[in-house]
Amino acid sequence: MHAVTDRCTKVARNFNMERLRNNYLFPEISARELEHIKKYPNAEVIRLGIGDTTEPIPDIITSAMSDCARSLSTPDGYRGYGAEQGDKELIYSIFSVQALRKAIAQTFYGDLAVRDTEVFVSDGSQCDISRLQLLLGSNVTIALQDPSFPAYIDSSVIIGQAGDFQYKTGKYRNIEYMKCGPKNNFFPDLSNTSRTDIIFFCSPNNPTGHAASREQLEQLVEFARENGSIIVYDSAYAAYITDKSPQSIYEIPGAREVAIEVSSFSKSAGFTGVRLGWTVVPKELLFSSGFPVVNDFNRIICTCFNGASIIAQAGGLACLSPEGYKAMLSVVDYYKENAQILLDTFASLGLKAYGGVNAPYVWVHFPGSRSWDVFSEILEKTHIITVPGSGFGPGGEEFIRVTTFGRRETILEASARLKSLFP
Amino acid sequence: MHAVTDRCTKVARNFNMERLRNNYLFPEISARELEHIKKYPNAEVIRLGIGDTTEPIPDIITSAMSDCARSLSTPDGYRGYGAEQGDKELIYSIFSVQALRKAIAQTFYGDLAVRDTEVFVSDGSQCDISRLQLLLGSNVTIALQDPSFPAYIDSSVIIGQAGDFQYKTGKYRNIEYMKCGPKNNFFPDLSNTSRTDIIFFCSPNNPTGHAASREQLEQLVEFARENGSIIVYDSAYAAYITDKSPQSIYEIPGAREVAIEVSSFSKSAGFTGVRLGWTVVPKELLFSSGFPVVNDFNRIICTCFNGASIIAQAGGLACLSPEGYKAMLSVVDYYKENAQILLDTFASLGLKAYGGVNAPYVWVHFPGSRSWDVFSEILEKTHIITVPGSGFGPGGEEFIRVTTFGRRETILEASARLKSLFP
Repeated sequence: MHAVTDRCTKVARNFNMERLRNNYLFPEISARELEHIKKYPNAEVIRLGIGDTTEPIPDIITSAMSDCARSLSTPDGYRGYGAEQGDKELIYSIFSVQALRKAIAQTFYGDLAVRDTEVFVSDGSQCDISRLQLLLGSNVTIALQDPSFPAYIDSSVIIGQAGDFQYKTGKYRNIEYMKCGPKNNFFPDLSNTSRTDIIFFCSPNNPTGHAASREQLEQLVEFARENGSIIVYDSAYAAYITDKSPQSIYEIPGAREVAIEVSSFSKSAGFTGVRLGWTVVPKELLFSSGFPVVNDFNRIICTCFNGASIIAQAGGLACLSPEGYKAMLSVVDYYKENAQILLDTFASLGLKAYGGVNAPYVWVHFPGSRSWDVFSEILEKTHIITVPGSGFGPGGEEFIRVTTFGRRETILEASARLKSLFP
Repeated sequence: MHAVTDRCTKVARNFNMERLRNNYLFPEISARELEHIKKYPNAEVIRLGIGDTTEPIPDIITSAMSDCARSLSTPDGYRGYGAEQGDKELIYSIFSVQALRKAIAQTFYGDLAVRDTEVFVSDGSQCDISRLQLLLGSNVTIALQDPSFPAYIDSSVIIGQAGDFQYKTGKYRNIEYMKCGPKNNFFPDLSNTSRTDIIFFCSPNNPTGHAASREQLEQLVEFARENGSIIVYDSAYAAYITDKSPQSIYEIPGAREVAIEVSSFSKSAGFTGVRLGWTVVPKELLFSSGFPVVNDFNRIICTCFNGASIIAQAGGLACLSPEGYKAMLSVVDYYKENAQILLDTFASLGLKAYGGVNAPYVWVHFPGSRSWDVFSEILEKTHIITVPGSGFGPGGEEFIRVTTFGRRETILEASARLKSLFP
């Protein structure tokens, strides 16, 4: 408890912040790691927890960023806010390099007719999700996959869309949890899902690693169209898709009228520290009054954001050149090989593991166990950090998430330690 | 008007977004510029509107960024989310380079005992203001200087703190406008100011260019302490202070218990495109319950943000080295010389101009004129873009803001054109 003294201001704490239950998941895991290091100061901890990239960025991409940085010291190369002086679409492009918006539209949506003016370059999808929440406000109802990436639900609570947290169920009131697990092939039973204004949907999914199939996404778009809902589709892991699963929601006919897509260079180009992402808001997406959603998003971007670093944008542009794209995907392949090693490891231990094929996460089932207990046991006995599945929602109980980002030798060492834990 | 058709979703537009009156100021000015260019395709337009830096960044700073970018291609140099692996303060530092937080604390707050864990590195102050609004929520009351930078009021409307816009007064209901003009030496009459939870205060001020004196800031802190208010102090232009005005609110005794400070490298280091800023939240700042504000801010940062680009952070660190700092301030001096040229120009025209001494803005008075009319007249006759003062609030009527960012030859040309307009 905190003491009320005459040093306190008279400003009441935001009730929405008070409603947030726990610490944000990843700092909580960091805290557990710190405790562990104190207890075992000589242990060599392996971090397969927070999904953080480890492989160097290909030269062709960092050279472009390095050149951009250097050019800022020259009169001709210097750029401030407006990256494209004299651009014909100043209003839209004031905060992003027009060439990058075009390259994103062409590379990722070539046949799907996403226009460059519908692409908003950002500093990452987590940040864009919060900006979308500002746009949507507190009066919309939301649904999300359970389990799912905690930023959706936490940002919903912060903006005021959620009711109280129920300790009994592990859920907030007024939020529709769409359970996704092995029993329903990681896709919600929509016949049993209440209508909400907004549906957050992440595919390939974090944490389960499941990429929704075309049929599943057709169902989802159909559901949104019937209900007049907006899908916020997070495709941050699309570069990892190996099979025929769609890489964008816009591959589904009719999606432009019901879906926003949020995506990122973080996990494809290793830009977790560089910071670059984008959001697509199609012009056909309309509020109930007919007002275009893209107009409000543009307004939010202008008021609450000043654009991604132009150095990062230069890097993004290099990622989308033919050579850069190939180099970028070779790093993705490396992580996918890691995934196969971990999938084989868990299979050899007789554990059911999901994901890994279309995503850099492996989702391991420990039937009957509590996931924080599994997390603790693995940490205690192997010095490996994972993420307890329940950190992603009650639907994640009994699971742990293992990231496949890591140097090969680290992944092999983790594999060996896991094999010795479950002999 | 927009047509309601069966293509519309059933999601209602956020009422707060609907309440926002105009386009965001700067895109509106860009639109006027586009019209002008259409009308005069051969005119050489001079942009003294949006305060965008123009001078190359000193080599020592861009080299650091270039090196950082290049190092991301090496196994040892690669960094992802957690810039400081193994750092002892993982929870706080997970999203910013610990060394930069320390350097900011020491360089800008050396004698004022701001701890590095109270410094949050960001991608700029406009972005941090929106994140602060998320933290504060819709139930707080706010005051702000009139005129002031539009992001404060617009973000307040977006988060739901404001009432309806009143066309008669040019003000939103439920917001306390603290008029600042020549008559009160650009400092509000606090005896006549209602108590609010939050007081946004920008010094040196954008747009008026006025830096509050020590006595004025003592009054402000005293007022906040008496009322139990929180000051959100924007010191983005502090590097421009020439006289004895405080560069930080923490120079005022007692400020740590009532003030947050937001600041930026944009206008000091020319980082408008690079994106880097910071916010200080002292541990002594408490909500009415005794709960520390810094805890909620940390939570917001973890949930809604993923840190500034590490390349930009490397640049910030270089700015704070002894040589980098000197180089950075030499660019500030250049813009201050521009300011003097413009001040002299307006003085020679018999116009009253304020600011310019402690800030990169000159605030010019046109008694009896409407500022959009002055804007249009200057644009029409000299092809110079300025900013109409009323864009910053009703208190800005009769004024225009002229930025002093610009190449010297541009400023001299602008001066010549202005002299010919008002002969």
